[in-house]
Amino acid sequence: MTIETALTELSSLLGDRLSRSKSDLETHGKSETYFPLTPPDAVAYPLSTEDVSAILRICHTHECPVVAWGTGTSLEAHALAVQGGICLDMTKMNRVVEVAPEDFAVTVEPGITREELNTELRATGLFFPVDPGANASIGGMAATRASGTTTVRYGSMRDNVLGLTVVLADGRIIKTGGLARKSAAGYDLTSLFLGSEGTLGIITSLTLRLHGQPEAISAAACVFETVDDAVATVIETMQSGVPMARIELVDADTARGFNIYAKADIPEKPHLLIEFHGSESGVAEQAESFGEIAQDNNALAFRWSNRPEERAELWKIRHNAYYASLALRPGASAIVTDVCVPISKLADAIKAAQADIAASFLTGPILGHVGDGNFHAILLCDKNDPKEVAEAKRLATEMSRRSVEVGGTITGEHGVGMGKLGLMELEHGSDGWNVMGDIKKALDPTNIMNPGKLTRQN
Amino acid sequence: MTIETALTELSSLLGDRLSRSKSDLETHGKSETYFPLTPPDAVAYPLSTEDVSAILRICHTHECPVVAWGTGTSLEAHALAVQGGICLDMTKMNRVVEVAPEDFAVTVEPGITREELNTELRATGLFFPVDPGANASIGGMAATRASGTTTVRYGSMRDNVLGLTVVLADGRIIKTGGLARKSAAGYDLTSLFLGSEGTLGIITSLTLRLHGQPEAISAAACVFETVDDAVATVIETMQSGVPMARIELVDADTARGFNIYAKADIPEKPHLLIEFHGSESGVAEQAESFGEIAQDNNALAFRWSNRPEERAELWKIRHNAYYASLALRPGASAIVTDVCVPISKLADAIKAAQADIAASFLTGPILGHVGDGNFHAILLCDKNDPKEVAEAKRLATEMSRRSVEVGGTITGEHGVGMGKLGLMELEHGSDGWNVMGDIKKALDPTNIMNPGKLTRQN
Repeated sequence: MTIETALTELSSLLGDRLSRSKSDLETHGKSETYFPLTPPDAVAYPLSTEDVSAILRICHTHECPVVAWGTGTSLEAHALAVQGGICLDMTKMNRVVEVAPEDFAVTVEPGITREELNTELRATGLFFPVDPGANASIGGMAATRASGTTTVRYGSMRDNVLGLTVVLADGRIIKTGGLARKSAAGYDLTSLFLGSEGTLGIITSLTLRLHGQPEAISAAACVFETVDDAVATVIETMQSGVPMARIELVDADTARGFNIYAKADIPEKPHLLIEFHGSESGVAEQAESFGEIAQDNNALAFRWSNRPEERAELWKIRHNAYYASLALRPGASAIVTDVCVPISKLADAIKAAQADIAASFLTGPILGHVGDGNFHAILLCDKNDPKEVAEAKRLATEMSRRSVEVGGTITGEHGVGMGKLGLMELEHGSDGWNVMGDIKKALDPTNIMNPGKLTRQN
Repeated sequence: MTIETALTELSSLLGDRLSRSKSDLETHGKSETYFPLTPPDAVAYPLSTEDVSAILRICHTHECPVVAWGTGTSLEAHALAVQGGICLDMTKMNRVVEVAPEDFAVTVEPGITREELNTELRATGLFFPVDPGANASIGGMAATRASGTTTVRYGSMRDNVLGLTVVLADGRIIKTGGLARKSAAGYDLTSLFLGSEGTLGIITSLTLRLHGQPEAISAAACVFETVDDAVATVIETMQSGVPMARIELVDADTARGFNIYAKADIPEKPHLLIEFHGSESGVAEQAESFGEIAQDNNALAFRWSNRPEERAELWKIRHNAYYASLALRPGASAIVTDVCVPISKLADAIKAAQADIAASFLTGPILGHVGDGNFHAILLCDKNDPKEVAEAKRLATEMSRRSVEVGGTITGEHGVGMGKLGLMELEHGSDGWNVMGDIKKALDPTNIMNPGKLTRQN
C-alpha cells in the first residue's frame, strides 16, 4: 500500500503530530454539506513551511493524497479526502508573522482565522476586510478565493492577497508576489493559487492587504414591496457614486423566518441592509443620498443611524438570517447554494430562483451580497432524506444553470469543492476546463494535491 | 522551412491581410528600447477571433512563432519577433462590442486604444480608468498587466478586466470570466493571461470594468525640500483615509528639466501632484486635508484648484515630464526603467537610485506613481553609443536588484519583455520561475507563442 508506506514515513517525521485516532479522523471527515462522512487515513499537524515541505516530499514519493484543512466551514465539501490519504490540519500554523503598517500589510500563517487576525490588528488602526460570514481560516479563504459582505467596497481575497508562500506537490517552496502593491513581472502566480482549492500546492504564508479602520460607520435599512425595486436601488446607488461598504438583500421569506425566530413583527417583504464607511460627515451624507434613491424606488420604510447599538438593531435580520431561515422549518437543516450574476440580471435571477423554489416542495429563503450580484438560497431540507437532498441539489443546479445562461458564474464565493464539480464544464466549456486540467497536470503530475476536485476527473 | 510553409498557407487564408512589405516588416520590428530592429517574417491583420484561431492552427501545425502587436509602445521590447515568425497586428480588431452600463462594464476588441475607448464611453457617464501614459491598446495593456497614474484609486488591469476571450496556441478558443463581478469557480484564468505577454495565447476580446465619471475633480501640487518629506506625506495621506485618485512624484532633476523645456522658473526640488475624484464638497475637503498633511511635512508651497484650466496648470510639470527630462540633454534619447517597492521602502529606494545615477556619467530624472510605491528613471543616453547603453542598463539593473532586496519587484508596470528577462530568476527564484515555465509548456508545448520571452530560455 503506497498510502501505508507514506504514513509510516510521516509517523517517523511527525511523531504525535500525525494522528490516526478515530475521533480525529471523523472530525476531519465531516463537512457542512450533504456529502457523507469521509475520513482521511491520517491527520498531520505541520508547524512550519519546512514541515509541509517534508510532508509533501514523502507524499509525492509514495503518491499519497494530501488535503489541507482550515476550519471545516466549506459549504461545498472542499476538504473531504475523497481518495483517502492525509488531511493536513493547518490550525497550528496560526501566527501573525509581521505587521507592516506603513505598507498597509500583514504576513500571517494560513491557520489564523479572520476574527483572530482582526483582534490582533485592533491597535494598529488597520483591519482585514474580507468577511465571508463564517470565522474561516485565512488559508481556506485564500484557497477558495472567498469574498462576502464587504467585497462591494474592499474586494475579495483576489484583491486583498499580495503574496503567498506555497509548497508545491513535490515539496519545493516558492514565494509569489510580496509587499509591493503591484507587479508586472510574469505570470500572476498569486492569483493562480487563490481559488485553486488545494489542488496545486499548499499555502503556508500569506501577505495580506490591510485597510484603515473607518473613522465613522453609518448603517441603513429599508423595506421594499418588490425585489425589482430593491435591486434598482442598488444599481442607482452605485451609478450615483455613493460608496457602499456593505449592501445586503434578504427576501420576504427570510423576514418571515425572522419574525418567528426573534418573535418580531417586521414587514414580510424584501429588505436592504446597507453600511457606509468614511468620515462623520461623509457617512451621514451617504446614508441620506441612499435614502433618497431608495424612496425614489418606492421604499416603504427607511431608517439609518451612525450609533453602534442602533446599527446593530438595523442589521439584526441580516446577522441572524441563517437562524431565521431555519426557523421556517423546525428540525430541518440547510443546503446553502451560491451564484453570482451580472448586476443587470440580478432581479430576474432572484425572481427565477424564488419561482423555482415556490414550485418545489422545499422552502428556501434567499439573501445576497447584491452589490456584487451574488446571492444564496438557504434550501431547508432533511439531509437524511435522499428525495429532499435530490430536490435541493436540483434547485441549486437550476440556479447555476440560469446564472451561466445570463453570463454569470456557478459560484460567486463558495467555490467548487465536490458540490459544483459537475457544473464546471457548463461554465468554462470543454476547452476552458481542459486548460485548468493542463495546469493541474503541469504542477501536480502525480495528482496528490486534493485529488478528485476542481479539474475534470478521468 | 517550416515558417515558409506556414506563410504560404497564411497567405492563402488571409490574402492581402498578410503583408511581407519591407515597410510593414520594419514598422513591426521597431521598439521604444535599445534593442535593434527585429523585423518579423510577415505581418498578419486578423479581423476576428475566428481569424486568429485559423492563423494559430496553421502556425501551430508548422511551429511558426506568433507575436501580437498593439501600438508598439512597450518600453521593454515585448513585441519583437526575436525568433522570427509572424507579427499579429491587432489594430483592425478595435471595435467596442457591447456597453453594459448597468453592469459597469464594456466588452471590446483588443486593438482599441484606451483614449478611443474613453471617447466612445463619454456619453455613458462611465470611464475606463487605467492610464499608463501612452495611448496603448487595451489588448497590450492586458497582456502586460499595465497600470499607471490612477492605479492608487482604481487599480491596475488586474483589477479592471472581468473576462477575456483567448485563442490558445493550437487555435482553440476559450472564454475566461465574464460580466459577473466575481467568481470562485476554479483557477483564475483571467489573471493568468493578464501579464502573460502573449506567451500563452492571444487575447481577442476583453470585458472591462468601468467606473462612474467623477462628479468633481480637484488637483493639488506641492513642493518639498526632500524626497523623504514627499513620501511621508503620501503615506500619512493614505493612513488618514483621504482617497487620492492620482499621486505623482517628480524629482528635482525633472523640475530642472521643466524649467529648461517650458522656460519656467519653478523650484528645482521634488514635487507632488495630486488629484481627487468625488463630490464637489468631497474633493475640496480632500484637497484641504492633504494640504494640512503636506504642511506638517514641511511642504514649501501648496496650491490646489477644482477649475479645469488651473488643474491643468498645476499638473503641467507631470504631463510634460518626459520632454522636460529630454531637455536636460538635447539630442539624447531615453531608456525608461521601472520598479515597484513596498511604500515603506520608497523614499530610500528613490534616494539610492538618485545616488547611483549621480555617481554615473549619465543623467536620469526620476518620477513615479508613488501611491503604489512605483517609480521610473528616465535614463538619458545616446542609444547608438554602446558604452552609454551599457551604463543605462547597469543603472536599471541596480534599481531592480535593490527593489527585490527590499521585497519589491523588478517591474511594477512595464513588464518583462526582453529588457527584464534576465532578472526574472532574481525576483522569483529558480523554482518560482520554473513554475512559470511549466505552465508555459503545458499551454504552448511547441513554444510558438512569443518565444524567447518571459520564461527561462533553455
